[in-house]
Amino acid sequence: MERVFSLQEISQHNTKDDLWIVLHGKVYDLTKFLPNHPGGQNVILKHSGKDATLTFELYHSTDIIDRFLPPEMYIGQVEQAYGIIPSNKSDENQEQQQETQEEKRIQLARETMPPIEEMFNTFDFQSVARHVLKESAFAYFSSGSGDDMTMRENHNAYHRIWFRPRVMVNVSHIDMTTEMLGAQVSFPLYISATSFCKMAHPEGEKVLARAAGKQGIIQMIPTLASCSLNEIVDARVYPTQLQWLQLYINTDRQMTQRMIQQAESEGVKGLFITVDRAIVGPRGKSANDKDMFEDQGGMEKVLNHERGTGSKTLPSFVDPSMNWKDMAWFKSITKMPIVLKGIQRWEDAVLAWRHGCAGIVLSNHGGRQLDFSPSPIEILPEVIDALKREGCDPSKDFEVYVDGGIRRGSDIFKAIALGAKGVGIGRPALYALGCYGEKGVEYLLNLFKTELAMCMRLMGAPTIKDIQSDMVDTRNLKNHYVANPIDYLAKTTYERLQPRGNLSKL
Amino acid sequence: MERVFSLQEISQHNTKDDLWIVLHGKVYDLTKFLPNHPGGQNVILKHSGKDATLTFELYHSTDIIDRFLPPEMYIGQVEQAYGIIPSNKSDENQEQQQETQEEKRIQLARETMPPIEEMFNTFDFQSVARHVLKESAFAYFSSGSGDDMTMRENHNAYHRIWFRPRVMVNVSHIDMTTEMLGAQVSFPLYISATSFCKMAHPEGEKVLARAAGKQGIIQMIPTLASCSLNEIVDARVYPTQLQWLQLYINTDRQMTQRMIQQAESEGVKGLFITVDRAIVGPRGKSANDKDMFEDQGGMEKVLNHERGTGSKTLPSFVDPSMNWKDMAWFKSITKMPIVLKGIQRWEDAVLAWRHGCAGIVLSNHGGRQLDFSPSPIEILPEVIDALKREGCDPSKDFEVYVDGGIRRGSDIFKAIALGAKGVGIGRPALYALGCYGEKGVEYLLNLFKTELAMCMRLMGAPTIKDIQSDMVDTRNLKNHYVANPIDYLAKTTYERLQPRGNLSKL
Amino acid sequence: MERVFSLQEISQHNTKDDLWIVLHGKVYDLTKFLPNHPGGQNVILKHSGKDATLTFELYHSTDIIDRFLPPEMYIGQVEQAYGIIPSNKSDENQEQQQETQEEKRIQLARETMPPIEEMFNTFDFQSVARHVLKESAFAYFSSGSGDDMTMRENHNAYHRIWFRPRVMVNVSHIDMTTEMLGAQVSFPLYISATSFCKMAHPEGEKVLARAAGKQGIIQMIPTLASCSLNEIVDARVYPTQLQWLQLYINTDRQMTQRMIQQAESEGVKGLFITVDRAIVGPRGKSANDKDMFEDQGGMEKVLNHERGTGSKTLPSFVDPSMNWKDMAWFKSITKMPIVLKGIQRWEDAVLAWRHGCAGIVLSNHGGRQLDFSPSPIEILPEVIDALKREGCDPSKDFEVYVDGGIRRGSDIFKAIALGAKGVGIGRPALYALGCYGEKGVEYLLNLFKTELAMCMRLMGAPTIKDIQSDMVDTRNLKNHYVANPIDYLAKTTYERLQPRGNLSKL
Amino acid sequence: MERVFSLQEISQHNTKDDLWIVLHGKVYDLTKFLPNHPGGQNVILKHSGKDATLTFELYHSTDIIDRFLPPEMYIGQVEQAYGIIPSNKSDENQEQQQETQEEKRIQLARETMPPIEEMFNTFDFQSVARHVLKESAFAYFSSGSGDDMTMRENHNAYHRIWFRPRVMVNVSHIDMTTEMLGAQVSFPLYISATSFCKMAHPEGEKVLARAAGKQGIIQMIPTLASCSLNEIVDARVYPTQLQWLQLYINTDRQMTQRMIQQAESEGVKGLFITVDRAIVGPRGKSANDKDMFEDQGGMEKVLNHERGTGSKTLPSFVDPSMNWKDMAWFKSITKMPIVLKGIQRWEDAVLAWRHGCAGIVLSNHGGRQLDFSPSPIEILPEVIDALKREGCDPSKDFEVYVDGGIRRGSDIFKAIALGAKGVGIGRPALYALGCYGEKGVEYLLNLFKTELAMCMRLMGAPTIKDIQSDMVDTRNLKNHYVANPIDYLAKTTYERLQPRGNLSKL
Repeated sequence: MERVFSLQEISQHNTKDDLWIVLHGKVYDLTKFLPNHPGGQNVILKHSGKDATLTFELYHSTDIIDRFLPPEMYIGQVEQAYGIIPSNKSDENQEQQQETQEEKRIQLARETMPPIEEMFNTFDFQSVARHVLKESAFAYFSSGSGDDMTMRENHNAYHRIWFRPRVMVNVSHIDMTTEMLGAQVSFPLYISATSFCKMAHPEGEKVLARAAGKQGIIQMIPTLASCSLNEIVDARVYPTQLQWLQLYINTDRQMTQRMIQQAESEGVKGLFITVDRAIVGPRGKSANDKDMFEDQGGMEKVLNHERGTGSKTLPSFVDPSMNWKDMAWFKSITKMPIVLKGIQRWEDAVLAWRHGCAGIVLSNHGGRQLDFSPSPIEILPEVIDALKREGCDPSKDFEVYVDGGIRRGSDIFKAIALGAKGVGIGRPALYALGCYGEKGVEYLLNLFKTELAMCMRLMGAPTIKDIQSDMVDTRNLKNHYVANPIDYLAKTTYERLQPRGNLSKL
Repeated sequence: MERVFSLQEISQHNTKDDLWIVLHGKVYDLTKFLPNHPGGQNVILKHSGKDATLTFELYHSTDIIDRFLPPEMYIGQVEQAYGIIPSNKSDENQEQQQETQEEKRIQLARETMPPIEEMFNTFDFQSVARHVLKESAFAYFSSGSGDDMTMRENHNAYHRIWFRPRVMVNVSHIDMTTEMLGAQVSFPLYISATSFCKMAHPEGEKVLARAAGKQGIIQMIPTLASCSLNEIVDARVYPTQLQWLQLYINTDRQMTQRMIQQAESEGVKGLFITVDRAIVGPRGKSANDKDMFEDQGGMEKVLNHERGTGSKTLPSFVDPSMNWKDMAWFKSITKMPIVLKGIQRWEDAVLAWRHGCAGIVLSNHGGRQLDFSPSPIEILPEVIDALKREGCDPSKDFEVYVDGGIRRGSDIFKAIALGAKGVGIGRPALYALGCYGEKGVEYLLNLFKTELAMCMRLMGAPTIKDIQSDMVDTRNLKNHYVANPIDYLAKTTYERLQPRGNLSKL
Repeated sequence: MERVFSLQEISQHNTKDDLWIVLHGKVYDLTKFLPNHPGGQNVILKHSGKDATLTFELYHSTDIIDRFLPPEMYIGQVEQAYGIIPSNKSDENQEQQQETQEEKRIQLARETMPPIEEMFNTFDFQSVARHVLKESAFAYFSSGSGDDMTMRENHNAYHRIWFRPRVMVNVSHIDMTTEMLGAQVSFPLYISATSFCKMAHPEGEKVLARAAGKQGIIQMIPTLASCSLNEIVDARVYPTQLQWLQLYINTDRQMTQRMIQQAESEGVKGLFITVDRAIVGPRGKSANDKDMFEDQGGMEKVLNHERGTGSKTLPSFVDPSMNWKDMAWFKSITKMPIVLKGIQRWEDAVLAWRHGCAGIVLSNHGGRQLDFSPSPIEILPEVIDALKREGCDPSKDFEVYVDGGIRRGSDIFKAIALGAKGVGIGRPALYALGCYGEKGVEYLLNLFKTELAMCMRLMGAPTIKDIQSDMVDTRNLKNHYVANPIDYLAKTTYERLQPRGNLSKL
Repeated sequence: MERVFSLQEISQHNTKDDLWIVLHGKVYDLTKFLPNHPGGQNVILKHSGKDATLTFELYHSTDIIDRFLPPEMYIGQVEQAYGIIPSNKSDENQEQQQETQEEKRIQLARETMPPIEEMFNTFDFQSVARHVLKESAFAYFSSGSGDDMTMRENHNAYHRIWFRPRVMVNVSHIDMTTEMLGAQVSFPLYISATSFCKMAHPEGEKVLARAAGKQGIIQMIPTLASCSLNEIVDARVYPTQLQWLQLYINTDRQMTQRMIQQAESEGVKGLFITVDRAIVGPRGKSANDKDMFEDQGGMEKVLNHERGTGSKTLPSFVDPSMNWKDMAWFKSITKMPIVLKGIQRWEDAVLAWRHGCAGIVLSNHGGRQLDFSPSPIEILPEVIDALKREGCDPSKDFEVYVDGGIRRGSDIFKAIALGAKGVGIGRPALYALGCYGEKGVEYLLNLFKTELAMCMRLMGAPTIKDIQSDMVDTRNLKNHYVANPIDYLAKTTYERLQPRGNLSKL
């Protein structure tokens, strides 16, 4: 027989060492789960002894409880007279007031939002998103690691590649179709996995599923989806629509296994294991910064740990012990092709090939993990070379994808020219989703398609196979130019050339 | 017997699928022409069922109808009581008000315009043009493709070339004369073809013809001239004045043939076939952006097309199927020397030589077509090298021109030093034309001449033949430096060195 | 029997050639010491004939008198009725008013100072320090030499190093412990010597000693400490806590010998001889600038000197004649390992190894001495290579440290990867000390630790030994990019791409 | 018997083709001289038919008339009742008003000018000069050619050279003395020739002579001095003080010969022939711009000329026909060592050596002649190498100087390290002269000396001979980095990292 708790009683379990929380009328004892929460401890502590349902729904699907929470943490029901659990009133009022103000700001921004036809390039969606999303959501999506070096470098690096266009080629017909893991797609781009899409749109990943389906491309479903796997799979617009699963390997391998097998049975066609997130990166702009310490177990724990006690204080959500030996087990529990997402050096690309992966994603997690990681496009040529030296033919045996910084159709062209099978996009889809919903995502995909088609025409490459490496000039690809410090004395004593006479008055 | 239509009747044919328009009292059914309009469909749709004469004249010469419109599209006359065709009044009022406001702004700008003597360099014309031209005209002229990378790179690249001046050379006499396609010119520069000059000046290309003639240089007549070919040819200031024709190859080859033969019979001395415009490029600043989609047949069509139906939806104005095999036919219908304009890699330069062209123009269409195309000056040295490897002597057998980014006399010097026969200018002539008319264009040409003469004197090269490749340092020509992302935290915590004490108060 | 002087009498010895000063009730004749004062002559002249105790205590420990002042300069006591020595009242009032104003400003700044939890990176401490320190203190700490080129380059250079992360490595346990001169430390960072810590905090170097001890790292004690050596040594939090001594070699070698032997007897475990300060560098922002001339003996003296008289006019505080022959004597008077601090080229690194040093610090004195000195991280790889060519194994025989510009955990990682045994920090510790005292320094060290631990995890290097040179991409390390002068005419005539339509109004 | 003219009569000769002017009561017919005026025709035309004495004295010494004006141009005296010649009153009033306003501005600026002690570096003088000089004077001094590229590059290039300091060297004694053309100087810097010093100071070059003498360095006297050669020579502070003469070769070789022989008889010890000014360069900021056309004979003349008439229209002041064959004649008329000033490529350096010159000055005329000329310091190493290949030892047989962009003592060090015998300064001396007169110039020279001495100490190079090429890192010297065009869309959608929370409010 199930226990029933009064609100009064629940509210007393509100400390780090005795922490209850109510979700959908059920009471959970999260004391032991606290250090394992991927989003940091603070957000849970803030709701300790209270009903956290509203906040929970903002980020998570209901099935996440079943997937990640050990069953023994469920301890009972809330009593019948269910209601708002008392809390520090003045705190809450202030918070509510702030929320109301932000809601007003957003409502106003949405009313004056430009019509979708004025989105002329993918950057425009981000400009709108800054205004119509909640501040915390925009900060979470747009933030990078450390000094944001890698995040910005990801797109910057494409600027170091110039074209070598061919003319006098018949480009009446452009065919952008290609294959990914054996399936045909309308053009070489997929929507990559990003966590917590509900922060952008109340229907979250379901919308991305529909837009991808209609546009004939693949959606990669995130482990940390805001919707349940069922919901996302059910959102397919036709039965054979393609979806992949992005996976964080949990310390509890049974959880991982359950998720893989559920996905496989639901018809998911590729397993993308994230390998660049042994720990969550320090994100400069996101509110999670303080949680960096928490994630490592708090400052004191870090200290003690680093002094050599060696106690394992990391959260269990992503297993930091994962290594190449785990590949055998992964392959034993699924028939889906396995792709490693987050490869950042050619040596690891070769290892992935040797361990029987179907491919890799060159990725640095959108610049959100380790600052000064190289941009995927920069290492792509050396990865392709290394694979070829190994006897692997990346045009058929093994698929190499890149993500991070794709903002123009010409970026896709450059990646294909250097040997990628396709590219993934993350933030642009979130911004389009957050601003204009499904229509926005379709519009964004069309922008990419139209720009790619135009680029192929003007480059003299009517099909994907015609896109060759001699069409790009990568001479400067590896060059990172850090400007000499500025000579302010010379700069400020120099008087700039300006139009003179009446011209200066215009 | 010709049919006559009432305004009332005409105004009912105002949809995409049933589209009539009145030009100079004649009624045309443009339903089938719509997707072929090089300027996009929108501008035609806006005038559907109405009299479009005023707008038409702003851009086009009357003979363009005969040249490009199939005769069967003419369907009759407007009835006697010809007048303004009714339209949505409030829309039109608003538009007219806006136009009146802009006219006032322009009138004021023209009244306070600096005297021409204050134009000290070619940039100054652009500064004035921004104020005295219509906003749409300035946007059309000044816009580039994508992120404007290539447009700006075109001039930027000249900054990567430094001089190696020779001193103690007798430079009392400077001789800038040279030959282009066998004819003598006063200095190695020609006015290149640019569409719709009437947006800059009511007499359009005729003014450029006169200025070029007076200065002893060649004018290249555009396919999309605002004046008719006859008018431009008639504007010659002396009978032997040299003109070339720039040509877009139409899907309807007969149209193309008629235009070539008309030009040849009018004494035009060179045929410059544009090869870098299989489709119009996406211009960031121009109002044409939305038309990018239209040009490709609208978003839905692009989608369907790219899904593999392969239906040809491109407009027929420029034939996207043009390729090297067409060269034989071109040569069969004209005796004019044929030059390909828009070559962007040495391999295509060699092909042009092999196919019997008289020369090439290294050009990326002023950065208006494919962003990240290389600047012509950057590829010039490798083109010259490749031609020499092929056994071609670019100093006599085959002429290599460059256009794009020429803004200083020293830019001309650099191009000549690297093997160009001459350079073409586009935008600077338009700005000079738009600001000061014929006097402005002559003044501009004199600025170029004076700067080139001074440069030749100070370089110790008294004649064009003395301009040698060892006079320029091209060591950095191929280097594209993309700055590392900025370290804002370090930058903002650093306090700049500034003059101190009383000095800081000055 | 000791002489006693009246205030009246003292106040008459107030010129350059007859200069008395009172410190703690004692009268000193500093006429001969004046040119040897490391901080310049002006600050002493300002107090000539007066009681300088208050200002003296702001910078110096009491024992500095015994250490550096020849005993014969002490000439007697002040008479009983000790008080403020009369001076130019109006001057003093003005000065006091200014000080009061600054104190108010600082008090206000401290009241609104952010809580320490908002320090998310090491730059944040500097931002706070600018507001809560005295202007003169912040100027002294933050200033560099000449145009501040080297000072900024020190951190900049780390941006030219990018990572090559390894994934699929078990990083459950991170061990950052390592050894320095044979002793274990919690992570590879030490607090380097910086002069006059009391300008940051009234307890000066004692606070650094406590923070270092608690965090398990080494403190390097400066020659120009504000506290006495005894005080700093006594501040150790446990008896075996490690400290090193930084040493300026005095012209009076007996002084030097006394200081070395005192330190050795107090248990100091390493002797770091500064070799990059034959003369104090010109610091652009510091108030010391005028003293640059003084240090060289005044403008006239410099002139006469440089004309060839060759008279030695340098202050004796740091011996400019020090050279490699002195190494034998240094080794003869101490058993402490000797490390040379301020090596800036590989040739000198090799010489240090040949002369039996225990190690070197690659350093340019934080960019405070010679502008355009290279950054330590830039020369580290060539130093390591040269040592290996010499048969020296820098991983065990000889220790190479770097300081200057360390601001991120990733900077430490990069230095270790390139062969450094550890890194020293200077300014960050001063800013943390000045803002939040001991808690601030500990917090700062934890930031470095946490960032390094995270970096090691994401790089796939769980221990210090796992940090290898193939994990960093140093291809651009030696590249100093000075931008071409800006083409202002082109820049100002180009109109930037901006979001358009309603988007531009957001 | 001399003719006498009335003012009335003189005022009627006021056109281009009949042009009289009064100077010091004498009447000159300048009709034929007009196109030869180095300062352009406009300034003379403005005074046609008038008394130009006041303006003349602002720029010229009286002896310039004897030196450069053919005697037959003197035509008589002004009648007794000498006075102001009538002119367009309203014009003159306006001009006078403007001058009065400027004088007021300058007087105010001089009253609030910082004390000389606040000049901490050579840039500071320029900051002051901008405020205390006449606008036209500052524009003339500070202007460069074209886009000011070369002018700025001259100093910029020194930033591409970094140091490799040696430590543990006895630097107690610094000896900066060296030899120039066989004579000893106090340090390796001379004051180069600059025209019209009176625009900076009423006593012009005489002040520079005194300051140079007191500081033991050489002054180079300009052809276009504001003072007469006698005056400048008489300003020597001791009889053996060294002076050189800078020479523009006149079309009238007798004038040139007279000037050389006068200088030689006055004890001038070196002849520096300027070879980089066949024509005056286009100076963007100077009011002379319009005169660029005049200098070339007016726009129409240029045109006609360039069309091939070949008529010589250049002014005769500097002979554009000067070439290597003239070397024999130069050597025949003087015993002074001959140095060519304005060499810009190694080939010409070798030619100068072969033609028996005593040395060369690598110079681009301070960036005032040909834009995109290389900086002297950049070509110095290749010049030294080429001379050595030729069998010439630049350390004794042949002296190589550099000028342009020297602003720091470290710049001098770098030039010496790369093989220069010494450096020349131009603008800094003018600014110091214009702000603080003789004291200012001495102060400036001391700044250079003190910075050089400090640099030598910290570099471990106690004498000039110790300054070796391995002390500088020139790896990036030849690298001209032109930044890729900026990606404004990406830049503006990126939100900068900023201090957060309360920190952002500081």
